[in-house]
Amino acid sequence: MKRPVITLLTDFGSVDHYTGAIRGVILGICPNAQLVDISHEITPYAITEAAFTLAQAWRCFPKGTVHVIVVDPGVGSSRRPILAEAAGHRFVAPDNGVLTMLFDSVTGHKVREITASRFFREPVSRSFHGRDIFAPVAAHLATGLAPARLGKRIEDYARLAFARPTRTGPKQWSGVVLKIDRFGNVITNFESEAWKRLARQPFEMRIGAHCASVLASNYAERNAGELFAIAGSAGFLEVSMNQANAAVEIGIQPGDTVELRLL
Amino acid sequence: MKRPVITLLTDFGSVDHYTGAIRGVILGICPNAQLVDISHEITPYAITEAAFTLAQAWRCFPKGTVHVIVVDPGVGSSRRPILAEAAGHRFVAPDNGVLTMLFDSVTGHKVREITASRFFREPVSRSFHGRDIFAPVAAHLATGLAPARLGKRIEDYARLAFARPTRTGPKQWSGVVLKIDRFGNVITNFESEAWKRLARQPFEMRIGAHCASVLASNYAERNAGELFAIAGSAGFLEVSMNQANAAVEIGIQPGDTVELRLL
Amino acid sequence: MKRPVITLLTDFGSVDHYTGAIRGVILGICPNAQLVDISHEITPYAITEAAFTLAQAWRCFPKGTVHVIVVDPGVGSSRRPILAEAAGHRFVAPDNGVLTMLFDSVTGHKVREITASRFFREPVSRSFHGRDIFAPVAAHLATGLAPARLGKRIEDYARLAFARPTRTGPKQWSGVVLKIDRFGNVITNFESEAWKRLARQPFEMRIGAHCASVLASNYAERNAGELFAIAGSAGFLEVSMNQANAAVEIGIQPGDTVELRLL
Repeated sequence: MKRPVITLLTDFGSVDHYTGAIRGVILGICPNAQLVDISHEITPYAITEAAFTLAQAWRCFPKGTVHVIVVDPGVGSSRRPILAEAAGHRFVAPDNGVLTMLFDSVTGHKVREITASRFFREPVSRSFHGRDIFAPVAAHLATGLAPARLGKRIEDYARLAFARPTRTGPKQWSGVVLKIDRFGNVITNFESEAWKRLARQPFEMRIGAHCASVLASNYAERNAGELFAIAGSAGFLEVSMNQANAAVEIGIQPGDTVELRLL
Repeated sequence: MKRPVITLLTDFGSVDHYTGAIRGVILGICPNAQLVDISHEITPYAITEAAFTLAQAWRCFPKGTVHVIVVDPGVGSSRRPILAEAAGHRFVAPDNGVLTMLFDSVTGHKVREITASRFFREPVSRSFHGRDIFAPVAAHLATGLAPARLGKRIEDYARLAFARPTRTGPKQWSGVVLKIDRFGNVITNFESEAWKRLARQPFEMRIGAHCASVLASNYAERNAGELFAIAGSAGFLEVSMNQANAAVEIGIQPGDTVELRLL
Repeated sequence: MKRPVITLLTDFGSVDHYTGAIRGVILGICPNAQLVDISHEITPYAITEAAFTLAQAWRCFPKGTVHVIVVDPGVGSSRRPILAEAAGHRFVAPDNGVLTMLFDSVTGHKVREITASRFFREPVSRSFHGRDIFAPVAAHLATGLAPARLGKRIEDYARLAFARPTRTGPKQWSGVVLKIDRFGNVITNFESEAWKRLARQPFEMRIGAHCASVLASNYAERNAGELFAIAGSAGFLEVSMNQANAAVEIGIQPGDTVELRLL
């Protein structure tokens, strides 16, 4: 018997009972679900960070996976719960733009507003839709419920304007830091594929008062403490240091500006 | 084939090998167990916090679930391991009061002292009963072991005195902070159901030098930075701020006093 | 149907998408895998800490378990991926010494260099071999792939020199702190079995300016704030305090020296 995979991506942290409650509700409806954590440590309310994290992880899962995303500053307001179908995966999330990177990268996605409250946990609380709406809906999908039974298709779902680098001069672009990972790698929104030329082309990538001017092919080849750019596993250029936390060393945060200049 | 659910609630954190060892022992005895974390980030030795977290989570799980609770400052002393049966769930825990909220809320619970050492891991260490007693006992229960084979029923199990608000004047009550959640919501021991009148009745809820005088129906309706009360998903009134960490803003900790006055 | 157990031990933390990606890749290849976390909070690049943590956990799991260890400062360099077989368990790891304590404790272990790139995820990134090499190889092993199909046996795999206590005088030994656990217990490299005599023999165990001179049999029997030695569940002597964080109280870190003197 195939065990349906349900992933969880939230900003609930791992201290409180919230993720435990969600897991319990899912297993009560779909006892043979394979529950998998993507992360519960998204910065509270950080929709962009959640969108980036989801974009990095979901393609690694097999088709048929149901992904539950609960990063939901608007809980209790009128924001809608939605179900997206894309590339054979299902995504249950609040309609707040957290699926933007998914919508940008997969053509042919379908989005529904989830309105079939008979699949919700009763009573629905005002502040914990993860447990009362998203978890039970995901569990019902995993047991085989047809998406169409959850609600009608919509086209006016939320999409965030994720910054892409903008050209600011003949040989100059301005981008942003998407995320800092645990190792202090500074993930920019410059796509690696588009900037392969930096391996042969002299350049300066400036973040604050600091500058990287080498595109390394691996961490170990650079000296400790040296700042360099590298094509990261996320598909974007990262600014890194070998065996040191680059973000801490140079005092950088998500959202900071990254200036790229070809020399 | 049904997969028995075993939940884990501990203060072991997620850094060390402790939870991994517990999971390994369980899978060695009950290979098809569905292992689910409630939390491993209970403040070390904080029995009350663990009791609150368990109370919030256990009802979300299906009947038949075995819950393992290892928050155990008395490990190695004479405190007994116990098994409680309540509402179709089983609870394996040290006899230190961590099941108090369960005992308070479920009538007809049964408690046994676990004495059948043939179901323990050999040798039993002095300081890691989670691995050596609680994990194997839970796994044997999940495989179908009858509770009666673990030990005799007892009535003198530990119950903590959880503070409920006390009346301190004709229109005044004194309560406490049960817990601070990740978002800085200050969970009090004022039960939401009992205080619905606050939606219509002018009041002041004082914590330290700060005061909330509005019962909000959701987070989004209030201004950023404003302190308000709200009926939280845990069933208690919480003192919160929209998109801010109320506990940090007003400098509050679990156990602090909460004064409620009707105006 | 038996569900193969795959454990994960990494320094990826729980914030980023890394462990989610690894879990997804494994479930894509081996849908009925039982995924179990040992820890993802190993100090970044800390091979010794990972080796200690693995040594404490792996024996608790049933035979047949596949353990994936990704603490890998040399990712992208020429360090080899290896597969070790020992005591009926399989270990997939970088060849950087992280399996040293396993090699020291299990005779008859076999080690192979993993070279069969047809079992890797395509394309293999330069910086995320956890997702692209270790996860898919582990999943293929869990589905029944014969180890010999992954690569040839080698004998020149890396082994670290883990410090054992050295004799520094007729009644004096010098050891080190292997690890600090969450509770502040200071785990030394003095093996408990070898030092049972300390229960009867006056001694001084010095760490920095502090000294323990009692071997306690459990935590509860000592006064709060008193420093004592205890035979920990890890098989080593630990320096601890009852209900207090010994490591913080005495300002100790992994790698610090521990002097033992018999009186």
